[in-house]
Amino acid sequence: MNQEEIDIHFMRIALDEAKKAYEADEVPIGAVVTCGNRVIGRGHNLTETLNDITAHAEMQAITAAANTLGGKYLQDCTLYVTVEPCVMCAGAIGWSQIKRIVYGAFDQKRGYSVIVDKTPFHPRATVLSGVLGEECAMIMRDFFSRKR
Amino acid sequence: MNQEEIDIHFMRIALDEAKKAYEADEVPIGAVVTCGNRVIGRGHNLTETLNDITAHAEMQAITAAANTLGGKYLQDCTLYVTVEPCVMCAGAIGWSQIKRIVYGAFDQKRGYSVIVDKTPFHPRATVLSGVLGEECAMIMRDFFSRKR
Repeated sequence: MNQEEIDIHFMRIALDEAKKAYEADEVPIGAVVTCGNRVIGRGHNLTETLNDITAHAEMQAITAAANTLGGKYLQDCTLYVTVEPCVMCAGAIGWSQIKRIVYGAFDQKRGYSVIVDKTPFHPRATVLSGVLGEECAMIMRDFFSRKR
Repeated sequence: MNQEEIDIHFMRIALDEAKKAYEADEVPIGAVVTCGNRVIGRGHNLTETLNDITAHAEMQAITAAANTLGGKYLQDCTLYVTVEPCVMCAGAIGWSQIKRIVYGAFDQKRGYSVIVDKTPFHPRATVLSGVLGEECAMIMRDFFSRKR
């Protein structure tokens, strides 16, 4: 697989996580942390279930990945997340030292890039957006249209 | 007690939390969430102990407060924290809808106000800084000078 195929592969796994959130009536966002093309952490939004605004998909996946590695820094890892991270998650990604962030749909209201002036990511981190962007956006639209 | 005395009172409790972190060899930051002048959540930095970069004092205190209230929004609460929140914690404070943020020492490197363009806090949230600022800064300086 080339890098584009790898990114699509792992974004599909993040989308599977988003679907679990959808089925649990949670805002459908999913995330996966990989290291050496292996999944070492995954998660989906659990803010309602856990009654905890900090329980975003990325936070779960980062905490899970640190547990897997036995160390809290994730320098050699990639984070795949179906929607652009919010400011909280962008801050967590920065602290984790994750070097590559790949996301699907943009979040024009709550996404970090709308709010943050200097990026809180690691200085050498790279960001790729729009991977399976339409599918990632569609599950969100579907969720919120069902809510109205 | 007037508001200034109330703020100093609760910042002392946050400082007690910071001291617990110090004694556990954690970066000494403490936080308290109050509601109607009662402490409903408290926490100190546990990133080393939990091997988790998301385990900041504010995150613990917010999660604890939501548990106490049985609801995840903290609109009528005040957060006291010994050091200016980072971007991650500022984002969490925003999601929690906390309306009043009181902090002690500034963080000129990692504090949210250095990095964030638009504040991620609730639009009607107020911020008071410098409460017991010197004491809050001193425990941090002491910790890091001992580490060198």
